Amino acid sequence: MSVNLAYPQKENIFNIDGIQLGTAEAQIRKVDRKDLLIIQLAEKTRVAGVFTQNRFCAAPVQVSKAHLQAGNEIRALVVNTGIANAGTGESGLANAKKTCALVAAALQIQPEQVLPFSTGVIMEALPVDRIEAGIPHCIANLNSDNWIAAAQAIMTTDTQPKVYSKKVILGEHEVTITGMAKGSGMIHPNMATMLGYIATDACLSQALLEKLTKEAADVSFNCITIDGDTSTNDSFITIATQKVLMPEIVEISSPEFIALQAAFNDIAILLAQALIRDGEGATKFMTIQVEQGQSVAECRHVAFAIAHSPLVKTAFFASDPNLGRILAAIGYAQGVEEPALDVNKVQLYLGDVLVAENGGRSVNYEEAQAQAIMNQAEILVRVVLNRGQANATIWTCDFSHDYVTINADYRS
Amino acid sequence: MSVNLAYPQKENIFNIDGIQLGTAEAQIRKVDRKDLLIIQLAEKTRVAGVFTQNRFCAAPVQVSKAHLQAGNEIRALVVNTGIANAGTGESGLANAKKTCALVAAALQIQPEQVLPFSTGVIMEALPVDRIEAGIPHCIANLNSDNWIAAAQAIMTTDTQPKVYSKKVILGEHEVTITGMAKGSGMIHPNMATMLGYIATDACLSQALLEKLTKEAADVSFNCITIDGDTSTNDSFITIATQKVLMPEIVEISSPEFIALQAAFNDIAILLAQALIRDGEGATKFMTIQVEQGQSVAECRHVAFAIAHSPLVKTAFFASDPNLGRILAAIGYAQGVEEPALDVNKVQLYLGDVLVAENGGRSVNYEEAQAQAIMNQAEILVRVVLNRGQANATIWTCDFSHDYVTINADYRS
Repeated sequence: MSVNLAYPQKENIFNIDGIQLGTAEAQIRKVDRKDLLIIQLAEKTRVAGVFTQNRFCAAPVQVSKAHLQAGNEIRALVVNTGIANAGTGESGLANAKKTCALVAAALQIQPEQVLPFSTGVIMEALPVDRIEAGIPHCIANLNSDNWIAAAQAIMTTDTQPKVYSKKVILGEHEVTITGMAKGSGMIHPNMATMLGYIATDACLSQALLEKLTKEAADVSFNCITIDGDTSTNDSFITIATQKVLMPEIVEISSPEFIALQAAFNDIAILLAQALIRDGEGATKFMTIQVEQGQSVAECRHVAFAIAHSPLVKTAFFASDPNLGRILAAIGYAQGVEEPALDVNKVQLYLGDVLVAENGGRSVNYEEAQAQAIMNQAEILVRVVLNRGQANATIWTCDFSHDYVTINADYRS
Repeated sequence: MSVNLAYPQKENIFNIDGIQLGTAEAQIRKVDRKDLLIIQLAEKTRVAGVFTQNRFCAAPVQVSKAHLQAGNEIRALVVNTGIANAGTGESGLANAKKTCALVAAALQIQPEQVLPFSTGVIMEALPVDRIEAGIPHCIANLNSDNWIAAAQAIMTTDTQPKVYSKKVILGEHEVTITGMAKGSGMIHPNMATMLGYIATDACLSQALLEKLTKEAADVSFNCITIDGDTSTNDSFITIATQKVLMPEIVEISSPEFIALQAAFNDIAILLAQALIRDGEGATKFMTIQVEQGQSVAECRHVAFAIAHSPLVKTAFFASDPNLGRILAAIGYAQGVEEPALDVNKVQLYLGDVLVAENGGRSVNYEEAQAQAIMNQAEILVRVVLNRGQANATIWTCDFSHDYVTINADYRS
């Protein structure tokens, strides 16, 4: 089940010159499914990344961060699903490094030129022998047009692969951007059990690629939540193969960078929203927009309090306009700045319908109006704090029986 | 469904001299159930309370706080279920005051001597006419031995009334303490959709009653969470009727006060744990104990991060020792102080079983050990941070299909 999420069509997904992708069924945790992916990068490719802030950050995250920080020329990414290789201590670190070494040997590069990624169950050992057996299969089918297969290979409880593509003109040059991501539980800002990869053939400096990466994450993956659980493995990686024959973009204020950033943001937002649309058990796609707060941080706190409330989420699952639960969540949100929030100034809208103001139900509000909106699959919740100029928008989904089923049975 | 929660037996519940309780079926929201309660207090009774910190605090909470703060001699409490009278603005306040006036007229006291309480759906109008019609029925059956009926009358989604009693000797005098409470969703520290009342016939000063109240709340109701939603209506009220002929307790360090505080804490903890045992959809009772942190606040942050994680809660529902999810929750807990938590020092125990240490799975840990514990209805999770002297313990329950069902259908 997913909310208005189309299956990717091959004709809409564009290859990125300099990138080849190969998958395998390595039986890491389950049989008969792609669970290992190698992405091979051409020489001179630039790579940047942002990672989970969870203190129990997984072994592959630690290794990927170290390999990036050392300034190595990254030539390959290796991703496995099934086992997260998190909460695995020293042996987990050794397994992540071993994986890099195996990939490097097969591709005749150095282990430090490989970034490893894992997603799946925490606190279980990575079966490196199965990865070793799978690597030749990945390499045998390395191909530029394998993006959809790659997006399938990184799925865990996702029901659909998520991959988007677009072309933009930068000055006189057309560049291509293609990205993929996986969710779909443990989704929370500051990254989630989410792996995201966006690549372009454009030519830009390492500094600007890093800048672009951080902003794309902030406007997309850091604006979503499914269950408030920040995972141990979240990684968002950007890749610029520099293959287009164009002047390197080096100026943050150049029209080329602005256009490229916008295109990256677009793809990242599509991917982030796709994670929500395919959130575990999701039946509704909710946009929570908090307006006129004192700061963006304050608006985000209020928005996430609403988005994380199990009571709000179950009411949306039931299409029940029990909207007082939203007021309660606004009322207990942490992180609202001084002076104290005046609840009598707060306005709550469901879509265009003014539901609450002056501390209570709006005089003209009729529940039938809200019911009509609650019956829809995509719902906008607007909270106007009326105490400042800042706004924030986040996306989330409802909380259904299927969420419980999926997470109660996750390992079985 | 509830977890090891016995139905109260009349012979275990002791009357409190100076307190009479009367209930009615006022049809406030549903028919054929007690939903209105009046508690009449003898003259000279002392009353104290602590209330929700939700900014959208309900009209009855505002009125109760005002009546207590004015120092009035409180002579009656009135409690309705079905409608919370929260998010109801000025008309809600008027309705809460009208309720006080109606009770006062019937009991020939002043409206300011009445404390009103409501629990139920937010943002709907209180049907004062039905309360008015119900008040004579409550008064007609006022009786000292109505505690179990009273505990029934304040229930919403609770499956059982919760009431506990004990007698203690203070010096040469026996005093009695009896308390009741209701849950059972929207339960989170700093009070919840929870109403709690504990009464005694002991003689103590107003200052000590207030002290006793705050400590009892801190060690009980502020240590529980079901879904992390802090309600608009939470109230915990203590009553001392001063009926026992004994010297008034005025010294905080006196053995009498220490013994009375301990007894109040015992009853409050029993009630708080009963709320968890009867939490919406609960099938497991979980104790989360975080040890050797730098401060109690830090330990509580870690404990609540675990207790609020839907992934942890669904794993416990499934009796699945997918314990890496607990490490992930420790890893993203907010409120951990500087210096940063060293995850390699963290030890995770399930019951007596050491599950994780040194950043990963303990060498001797076998999943069968954890599985045996997960199959039990009462489970202890111990997290040793190994960075200080402070400890904290909280109680929570799992997250089941029934939670979703109950909250999706709450208003139907």
